Amino acid sequence: MTSDTSERVPRPGPSTRARVRVMTAAGSEDRADMLATEEPMEIRLQAPDGSQRTAAVTMRTPGRDFELAAGFLFGEGVLGGPDQVRRISYCADPELTEEERYNVVTVDLTGPLPELPALERHFMINSACGVCGKESLDALRLRGCAPVGAGPMLRPDVFWELPDRLRSAQTVFARTGGLHAAGLFSATGELFAVREDVGRHNAVDKVIGWAFLTGQLPLDRYLLMVSGRSSYEIVQKALTARIAVVAAVSAPSSLAVALASDFEMTLVGFVRGRRFNVYADHGRIAPG
Amino acid sequence: MTSDTSERVPRPGPSTRARVRVMTAAGSEDRADMLATEEPMEIRLQAPDGSQRTAAVTMRTPGRDFELAAGFLFGEGVLGGPDQVRRISYCADPELTEEERYNVVTVDLTGPLPELPALERHFMINSACGVCGKESLDALRLRGCAPVGAGPMLRPDVFWELPDRLRSAQTVFARTGGLHAAGLFSATGELFAVREDVGRHNAVDKVIGWAFLTGQLPLDRYLLMVSGRSSYEIVQKALTARIAVVAAVSAPSSLAVALASDFEMTLVGFVRGRRFNVYADHGRIAPG
Repeated sequence: MTSDTSERVPRPGPSTRARVRVMTAAGSEDRADMLATEEPMEIRLQAPDGSQRTAAVTMRTPGRDFELAAGFLFGEGVLGGPDQVRRISYCADPELTEEERYNVVTVDLTGPLPELPALERHFMINSACGVCGKESLDALRLRGCAPVGAGPMLRPDVFWELPDRLRSAQTVFARTGGLHAAGLFSATGELFAVREDVGRHNAVDKVIGWAFLTGQLPLDRYLLMVSGRSSYEIVQKALTARIAVVAAVSAPSSLAVALASDFEMTLVGFVRGRRFNVYADHGRIAPG
Repeated sequence: MTSDTSERVPRPGPSTRARVRVMTAAGSEDRADMLATEEPMEIRLQAPDGSQRTAAVTMRTPGRDFELAAGFLFGEGVLGGPDQVRRISYCADPELTEEERYNVVTVDLTGPLPELPALERHFMINSACGVCGKESLDALRLRGCAPVGAGPMLRPDVFWELPDRLRSAQTVFARTGGLHAAGLFSATGELFAVREDVGRHNAVDKVIGWAFLTGQLPLDRYLLMVSGRSSYEIVQKALTARIAVVAAVSAPSSLAVALASDFEMTLVGFVRGRRFNVYADHGRIAPG
């Protein structure tokens, strides 16, 4: 695999200049501001014979786009390992403007294009009647997801530090106030990698895609911390990367808790100050 | 159209009972808790001849499911008006469990199934190279979206009250701490309708779907307030319903601002206390 980790920063970059009118009770003032950039990105698969298929288009914050593509495809079960990837690149069509090229990422595969049904599952276009939470969990089992392993043992005070460490690593958030983050931490709370995006699920895809491209999967010794809430999708992506512990600044959804419990993961929420809530445990958090 | 506005509350309902372990520096305590329910919902289209097609499956918080289906289909351009809908109902397949039936909503159309390309655009599977923000805006124009009309004139102090009014109308949030909200307000700040969901875009679909089903579109005299951030998707949905003013508790994305500016909408962010930021205006906010 040619893993182009020296990927150029795309234009537009992760933040965009803007003018804003600040209105207060005392009056209004115009000033310069920075916005989190949101642009669509198309993820395209290409087989050795040159045949192509669009796997997805997602609204994302530019930057770490190859990680996003790899992480997304891994999380959806389209890619199993880095040996299936020959190269990841931006669209080279000379008829496109530079901006357009940076919104299309092509993943060159070492083998043929995956079958359509596997891709359709991502879009969750399901012709069977009776899609329900229970079946979502069953579908993951069918895809070969076993419960996570033992994973790390954690002291409660490790969690206390996570939100501040995540926030202080968010360089684009500091400028824009408008980005989600996902961070990988060691069992002792050291930050291993952080990625930002307007979408929480994209931030998680970028972190896991980075681990995928650099050959560091499975992530069974790490914990994942996300800003905001934890949903089914976040926990599912962690499970696929074999992350045993997921923590979030805010609340989990019912299906996030069901999924974590079912696959023996630890799920923590409302990590604020020196307290947090444990929604699923499986013996990984040492008594305070 | 048979608009079943007396829709039963589905099981599971909008919140789900759970046990949680609260960990503090002083120790831990187990107690009962409520989670925001997250379950997949399939939106199915059915033609008078009985032929069916799945339009989408979205993770959502159960409740107001018919509004969600109608609002989603309207926002995607699949439905133009309530006369195209004969009936909306839960799946009646007797082989399904009750929970499963409540996760499939069938929209009976008065005419044939819409053509595939229109639906595919939703999933944003786009085989054309060069998807970019600029093209997203152009695509909306192609769908016949003109700039919004004059819309309401607003006094700055109207915005100050919006976050509190939205929050105090969020009945499920109060129990779970885990839900987004979208509220429709009059130009003087009176709350007209509020809907909640684990997904901000679903909350917006529910509000607009309610207006669609009760024949109140276009919403050109109202303003939309969302919890959290405003993205391209949120502004696009407002535009389709002809809402001229969108406000959010947090930051907008770059494409949200571009879309609002392009279609002459007013976009406000960081509504906190007695201040807020204006990212696009078009003369609707009276000088303080």
